[in-house]
Amino acid sequence: MSEIEKPFTVSRVLRFGDCDAAGVIYTPRALMFAFEAIEQWYREVAGASWASLPESHGMAAPTVHHEADYMALLRADMDYEIRLWVARLGRTSIHFAIDGAGLDETLFFRIKVVSCFISLARPERKSAPIPADIRARIEAFRQRTGTGPGD
Amino acid sequence: MSEIEKPFTVSRVLRFGDCDAAGVIYTPRALMFAFEAIEQWYREVAGASWASLPESHGMAAPTVHHEADYMALLRADMDYEIRLWVARLGRTSIHFAIDGAGLDETLFFRIKVVSCFISLARPERKSAPIPADIRARIEAFRQRTGTGPGD
Amino acid sequence: MSEIEKPFTVSRVLRFGDCDAAGVIYTPRALMFAFEAIEQWYREVAGASWASLPESHGMAAPTVHHEADYMALLRADMDYEIRLWVARLGRTSIHFAIDGAGLDETLFFRIKVVSCFISLARPERKSAPIPADIRARIEAFRQRTGTGPGD
Amino acid sequence: MSEIEKPFTVSRVLRFGDCDAAGVIYTPRALMFAFEAIEQWYREVAGASWASLPESHGMAAPTVHHEADYMALLRADMDYEIRLWVARLGRTSIHFAIDGAGLDETLFFRIKVVSCFISLARPERKSAPIPADIRARIEAFRQRTGTGPGD
Repeated sequence: MSEIEKPFTVSRVLRFGDCDAAGVIYTPRALMFAFEAIEQWYREVAGASWASLPESHGMAAPTVHHEADYMALLRADMDYEIRLWVARLGRTSIHFAIDGAGLDETLFFRIKVVSCFISLARPERKSAPIPADIRARIEAFRQRTGTGPGD
Repeated sequence: MSEIEKPFTVSRVLRFGDCDAAGVIYTPRALMFAFEAIEQWYREVAGASWASLPESHGMAAPTVHHEADYMALLRADMDYEIRLWVARLGRTSIHFAIDGAGLDETLFFRIKVVSCFISLARPERKSAPIPADIRARIEAFRQRTGTGPGD
Repeated sequence: MSEIEKPFTVSRVLRFGDCDAAGVIYTPRALMFAFEAIEQWYREVAGASWASLPESHGMAAPTVHHEADYMALLRADMDYEIRLWVARLGRTSIHFAIDGAGLDETLFFRIKVVSCFISLARPERKSAPIPADIRARIEAFRQRTGTGPGD
Repeated sequence: MSEIEKPFTVSRVLRFGDCDAAGVIYTPRALMFAFEAIEQWYREVAGASWASLPESHGMAAPTVHHEADYMALLRADMDYEIRLWVARLGRTSIHFAIDGAGLDETLFFRIKVVSCFISLARPERKSAPIPADIRARIEAFRQRTGTGPGD
């Protein structure tokens, strides 16, 4: 059996402006970091950006759910990584598992985000199957990286 | 038995800059709106702002968990309300229930946020009981407004 | 000669999340506040929102220039006002003058923003005259409120 | 005479969430990108981050002025670079020149930002000379990269 590679990873430094007056990360920024990593993953791994999906496939992939737990506090100038896995791949939805972790493996936060594909052709914006070309790339990604840290 | 009043409510208009390139709300902004309402509630209802808590009580109230579901899409220039209840009041934590709703009662999103009080005196930042003066104001608020829409 | 009324004014409280790790306003937020006030002014005074302009007039009003000076530091929980005047009304452009001021008249920042109307019908997005209905409302606003603090 | 190197450069992709409902960059984000580049430059080139300056030198370096011109519109998924020069180095202030440019050399925006060093020891937060170790690094940077595009 082949080795599991590391997840999709974005290296960052916590910015001064991402902190609040207490000198630690302002919590909603962690969700922003997760969204920025997902957006980059769509473009680089799934081969379909949020901005190009309407034209390329007549679809969009809005977020229908997210949840987050915070375990430790990030401070300004700290190095950290956003690590992204696809925990579950449904017929119409993608469940992302995202960790914010320090280089010493401190886990700062753990976030789940669910995207649901919808067809823009239907006025009621109902969920629709993930296009085959995108699904194939996501399945290859999951084979390489596994399904993440689980619950 | 006394009438239940309406929840803590902030009236807003969805701004152009809160939308993404698809012309609808960029999802992480909904969490920002929830946080802005919670911050205002701390100051106006609980009588202790996030910025003043360290000096007034030697404490902080960081967010340890949040989760959100999205039911309908807000568009630029739409009027909406952020409605906030305290769903559960623990010894050291506050569970907020927050709805984003249209004036015609369309439910756009439903968000839960959990704040946990910690003592800044202890180096390990352990959870600590909510101060009595703050707790009394929160209990009076819950008596007036109930515990929200539930699950 | 008629009395000059006060400018278009938005009352705000500086939020915890608008501060940086030094406990004072993170500078780029001041520009955000200016833009939020301008957006609200377009909707409430000029009768044409940024989001509706393409459909109502086949136009857009992008920002082509802004500049800002910072005189005093806003801190979390401080009350302040954003005050907006139209300093100059050109054939195709609006020059906004915006002050961020405390209730005791402390001037925190002074910002200028220039919007330029463009026609979306022309592919090269050239500047185009401000539509007559919008111009009439802006002129009435300037008659009531004057041209601001000047240089 | 030695060759001028390229400026301090950050490569970025315009994100979906950085766009507004018109599908182009929401203007205040450009200032955010400039600030993020300046913050990174302080840390990597000047050897003193905004967050560490109070402890390392008893100083801060708040922004006292910024101005920006917009020449062309960035769209979602576009690659661009933020390029930073020190246009002028005063006794107590740094004048940054920042360009947002495409890989084909399209100039999207040009921004100036002025930081002023202040001593935190003085209650009135007066301007104070840039510390010698920081000044030496900035002068070496200017020797390598020049003073930017000028006016």
